[in-house]
Parts: sequence; C-alpha cells; structure tokens
Amino acid sequence: MTSVFDWLDTRADERRRAGLARRLHPRRVDSDLLDLAGNDYLGLSRDKRVTGASAAATLRWGAGSTGSRLVTGTTEAHIELEHELAKFCGAQAALVFSSGFTANLGAVTALSGKGSAIVTDAYLHASLIDGCRLSGADVAVMKHGDVAAVTHALKTRRTERALMVTDSVFSVDGDLAPLRELHEACRANGAALVVDDAHGLGVLGEGGRGAVAEAGLIGEPDVVTTVTLSKALGAQGGAVLGPRRVIKHLVDSARSFIFDTGLAPSSTTAALAALNVLKEEPALPEKVREVALTFSSRLREAGLRVTDPAAAVVSVLAPTPEQAVQWADDCRASGVWVGCFRPPSVPDGVSRLRLTARADLSDSDIERAIEVIVKHAPSAPPRT
Amino acid sequence: MTSVFDWLDTRADERRRAGLARRLHPRRVDSDLLDLAGNDYLGLSRDKRVTGASAAATLRWGAGSTGSRLVTGTTEAHIELEHELAKFCGAQAALVFSSGFTANLGAVTALSGKGSAIVTDAYLHASLIDGCRLSGADVAVMKHGDVAAVTHALKTRRTERALMVTDSVFSVDGDLAPLRELHEACRANGAALVVDDAHGLGVLGEGGRGAVAEAGLIGEPDVVTTVTLSKALGAQGGAVLGPRRVIKHLVDSARSFIFDTGLAPSSTTAALAALNVLKEEPALPEKVREVALTFSSRLREAGLRVTDPAAAVVSVLAPTPEQAVQWADDCRASGVWVGCFRPPSVPDGVSRLRLTARADLSDSDIERAIEVIVKHAPSAPPRT
Ligand SMILES: Cc1ncc(COP(=O)(O)O)c(C=O)c1O
Ligand SMILES: Cc1ncc(COP(=O)(O)O)c(C=O)c1O
Repeated sequence: MTSVFDWLDTRADERRRAGLARRLHPRRVDSDLLDLAGNDYLGLSRDKRVTGASAAATLRWGAGSTGSRLVTGTTEAHIELEHELAKFCGAQAALVFSSGFTANLGAVTALSGKGSAIVTDAYLHASLIDGCRLSGADVAVMKHGDVAAVTHALKTRRTERALMVTDSVFSVDGDLAPLRELHEACRANGAALVVDDAHGLGVLGEGGRGAVAEAGLIGEPDVVTTVTLSKALGAQGGAVLGPRRVIKHLVDSARSFIFDTGLAPSSTTAALAALNVLKEEPALPEKVREVALTFSSRLREAGLRVTDPAAAVVSVLAPTPEQAVQWADDCRASGVWVGCFRPPSVPDGVSRLRLTARADLSDSDIERAIEVIVKHAPSAPPRT
Repeated sequence: MTSVFDWLDTRADERRRAGLARRLHPRRVDSDLLDLAGNDYLGLSRDKRVTGASAAATLRWGAGSTGSRLVTGTTEAHIELEHELAKFCGAQAALVFSSGFTANLGAVTALSGKGSAIVTDAYLHASLIDGCRLSGADVAVMKHGDVAAVTHALKTRRTERALMVTDSVFSVDGDLAPLRELHEACRANGAALVVDDAHGLGVLGEGGRGAVAEAGLIGEPDVVTTVTLSKALGAQGGAVLGPRRVIKHLVDSARSFIFDTGLAPSSTTAALAALNVLKEEPALPEKVREVALTFSSRLREAGLRVTDPAAAVVSVLAPTPEQAVQWADDCRASGVWVGCFRPPSVPDGVSRLRLTARADLSDSDIERAIEVIVKHAPSAPPRT
C-alpha cells in the first residue's frame, strides 16, 4: 500500500547482522536481580524518605505541573529545589528542567549561537552533542582529555564568544575530565566552561557536592554546571547551576525550558528529599566510590580490561558487540544485571559491560557480582 | 575578573526594553486563582484517581526509573502504558519518552536524516523545529496551513525519503491543521506524515482519541503521531504512536530515547490512570470543547479579537507585548490566571492572551473569567 517506511526494515536487518539490535527488558517490581545497571548510585530512588515525600507531593500538588515553567508549571517546590540545589553545590542560582537531557540542550544552545565557537571533548554525552548541533555555533571536537588541543582551539578561534563543553565524569568509561586545566584554558582565552556533572553530583566532592565543586569551580563567574536529578538523586529531571545572570538568561531564552512542561511535582519533591538525605548522610558518596574501586581492582586482578573509576561507573571492555551482549545475558541469567553498551552508545566503537556501584550494596552482593562477571567473561577476553 | 557573560546583561536590557523579559510565577498550593493558563484540560492532574495511583506507584516502584529505557528504566508500568495508549488511540504500537519535547526530537530525527527532506508548517512547535534542525535533513517551511505549498514541496523534492511534519492543534492559536489533505499530499508523493497531537489527545476525536484518530489516520502505515502525557492526561512525559516498525526503529536509534532516563514511575502510572478515567468518562472531551467555544464566542461578542478554537486553546490578540503583559497582570490581580504569549513564543510576532478551557470549570467560573478579561482589555484593543 505504501512503502515509505520500508527502509526501516533494511536498517533493522543491518543492525541485527551487526549485533546492534536493542531489546527492552521490562523490570518487575519483585525482581531479585542484583542491579549494577542503573544509575541510582546512592540507592535513594527507593529510600522511604524520598518516596514518601514524593508521593505526598503528588497528592498535594497534583500529578503534573500542568504547564510550561513560565506559565503554571512552576510551583513553590520548584523554587525551593532550585534554591537548595544552588546552596548545596555552592552556585549562585539554579534552574530546574524536565530532564538532564533538556537541561543540556538549554544550557548549550542559550549560551552559544551563530557567530560563537564551541570546543568540546570527543566523548561528550549525546544530549550535549545535540545541544552543540542545535546551537548554530562553530563546533570543534577535540581528542578525549586533550587540554592542549582545547587551549589551541580556543586561542585560534575567530569568534569573540566561546564555550568549552565537557562531561565531568564521562558516562561510558567513568573517567574524569581535567576540569581545573580546562578552566584555566577557558579563563586565559575569554571562554566560558560548561560542565555536565550528571555522574558527579552525589558521588564526588565533599558530601557529594559534585566534581565541579570538588575542583573549586562551582562559584566561578565563567562556569556553568548542568546536573541530572535522575541518577544519585534517584528522581527525574535536570538542572543548570551558575551565575545568576546565566540562570536569568535561560529563563528568557532556553527553548527546552520555555517550550516544555515543568517537571512533575513528584519528581521535584523527590529530588529535594534526596538532597536532604545527602545532607544528613554525607558519607554516602564515599561509600559508593569505595564500591566502584573494589569492582575495578578485583575485576582487573581477574584479568579483565577495566577502566579506572573516578566516580561510580566502571567499564569492562568486551571483544565484540555480540560477545558483550552474550556476556551481559549470561550475567543476567545468573542474577546480576549489568549494562551493555554498544555502538552508537560508545564513543570509541568498543562494546563493553558498564557496571555502576551503589552505596547500598552489601559485601556479599559485591562478591557475588564479581564472581558472576568473571565466570561469564568471553573465552578470549582482551587482557590488559 | 572575567567578562565572558557580560553579553547576557546586554541581551537582558534589550529584552527589558522590548517588553519581553520573563518572570516565573510560583504557584502556591492554596492559590485561589482561577486557572485558565495551564494545559490540564480535563482537570485530571488533581483527580484523586490519578494522584492516588501515581502516589502508589512511587511507593511501589521508587521515585525514579533509575536508567535509560534500554537499561533499567523500563518498568512493567511503561510497557502497560505503551500498550494501553496504542490500543486507546488505535495505533499499532507506542513508545513512551520522558517528555513530549524529547518524543518530538526523537521521532523527527530518527525518521529523517541527511539525504532526506522535511516539509513543515510555519507554526510548528519549538520541539519539532529543534527536531528538524537536528535531523540534518533538507528542511522547507511552508506558510501556515498551505496544503498546496506542501504538495508542491513534496513533489519537487530531490530526495527519495521525505516527512511532512505538523502540529494537529497549533499550540498558540488553537487552530487545526488540515490533516486529511496533508495525508493525501504525503500519500501521493511517497512521504510520511508526522503529527504532534499534544493538544488533540483527550480533547478531540471519539472519547478523546485525538485529532489523528478523528481524521481516520491513526492506523495508517505512513502516519506517525506524537503526544504528550502532560496536558489532557495531567501527568508528565510524551509518546510516539505508529506502525510497529517505526516504534522498533525508535528504540534502536532515537537519541532522546536511548540517552535519557526513562519516565518516572509516578508520571507513567499517572498517565495510565488518566487514560482509564478518559475511558470511563468519554464525555469529558466534549465538555472542554464546549467551554472553549463559549469563551471564544462571548469574548468576540464583547469586541475582542479571538481565534476559533478547534480544541481547548483560545487565543485573544493584544496590540503590543507590554499591553499583553499588563492585561494578563490585571486579570491575575482580579483572580483570573491567563497565559500571556509574546515573541519568541508566537510564530507571527503578535502578542496575545492564551486561555485554555477546562472540563471542570463551572458556569460561574466561566462568567467570572469572561467578565474579568473583558474589563481589563487594553483601552484600544484591535477589533475584528
Ligand atoms: C552525562 C549525562 N548527561 C546527561 C544525561 C541525561 O540526563 P537525564 O537522563 O536526566 O535526561 C545523562 C544520562 O541520561 C548522562 O549520562
Ligand atoms: C504542540 C506541543 N508539542 C509538544 C510539547 C512538549 O510537550 P511536553 O511539555 O510534554 O514536553 C508542547 C508543550 O509543551 C506542545 O504544545
């Protein structure tokens, strides 16, 4: 009748042949899988202090925010969360978006634009890449972690305005960007630094204040930080933190803020409650970092090729996409759920298992996980 | 110390002078303002059946979905919502995103790309525009509602693949796109039709099945529909509905699906509960349409310039941005909260009040709203 979507079948076949077809794994509420795949680093998503406050907020405010943040979608809870987030991390101000994805789109596009330059790290998160693409700016992508290249690109740019955009903790390998050096390069060359601290907040820095705070940069007038509320804070949503004039500018001009419904009251309040737990239990971030280090050292001792975790993410390389999938499936069949990242979700084209540490894992959970992952490693894994 | 963000102050001054600076109006939980500004068309955001189910889901599943939909972020509730949404609207399959914004980005980018063409209506929602910009496709923007121009653009394109992308109900003026004619143009020219039914779902079509269902197009093999869960369904999130192969393709390749945390269980279940209310009370959509027609006819009788509402959105034109703001502020001071849309949120540059009808407004609410809006109309309003 119509063949307009026949090309989708061709693409699906190609993906199947390349081992890149994806499946959803619906989670059961009574699942007894050991979860090393999610980003609930502190176990706060199911913490009763968080879920109780969130459920109460739904009953109090309603299930939705009912409109754009500029119209009816800002409740007092949004303002309180923005205030508390900024205060906790040490920024002048904050602005809450409906996701970390839209926060990144908003920050990058509103702070750049035609006639400006953006210099980025090659392993940037997809939402930042899309922000760069949308911005209309001249985008230059530097080799992963190459500060000299960033400095050179900033120095030799032809535009007055420039941003350097990077993740703090890279989401696939869990390594940390050289934030201080990048900031120096920005400062010396009249550029602003935009850092996505999605995997740093709640895990790095004093009491979980994040990688940008740890680097001493959070209050700097030329630094903008984005975070998500969906990982260590166990909720949903995102935020931008920075100088007050940056936040005001986003309210006036970030399209993914203006033309999007405000974050639901349930998620807003869940993030606020999680922030309170973090203040009450400042040792949680250290715990999750220790667990990550245990995973990486023990798996490496067992002969696997493992990244050095700067935060909670541990990456274990696999020879091929098919073997990565098989490995993850075998772990799952043995009760351990690990992430499996393949192209196009990996910047270097190398498939891997991605484990995330959690602060609420017991010693026996950790032992079991290591045993299962090692047992199912592909017969000829790449060795260090 | 550093002047990298000084340009933001210049921009802020420019906006202030042009009457385009924006302010957030935090909502109090005990606000007694009559709300004609939100998009909670059926009043379901605060419906106890919806908030009760949503709060219970938070306690059951946790506050966040904890990961990408491809990893841990798909719960059984997500699968159930997708199944029920598709069944209700009459589509083969559905895929839930964290927002209507990201659903639009995902659908447009994954179904087009370099070497393909996109033809759009000039009054497209910002999220669809951003999807087009991100897609890398050749984008041609046609005059609002001009089917002949769309047909010509599709016929004379130089690429094999093409999408026609449009809103069903346009979000600013509330008018309806000529969906059947657009589909004929697509069918005749081997293009697919992508329709954003954000303001149609729950308001138009039999029992609120939406504008695409009403036009008889929802099950067509060359039609893809996007919806939001944040308006008539009173929750948060978005979805894409369409042929099964389209949905499978999005799972494998929509960046705003893959690289984004899944929708929170609270919002997922709220949307599901709202859908159930809609099934139980199929007269709600008719009610909201009647209220919208009452607003438009009565305000027009009073001499104001008002659009013809196809759904729940009624637009009242104002002479200048400053007068629009003053008008909205005066209404607010008199207890009636209306939206105020100014550039860049209006496609034609004309500022206006934007009222939204709700199924749960009483006759006296309606009378009071009309009285207040007319009383505070700018001294020299543009007349019809
Ligand atoms: C580095 C990074 N930035 C941004 C995001 C997007 O945040 P969210 O999932 O809250 O939209 C993610 C993950 O999803 C991420 O890993
Ligand atoms: C036509 C249209 N499409 C998409 C969206 C975005 O949906 P959401 O707010 O759920 O992200 C909106 C409004 O916000 C809209 O009006």
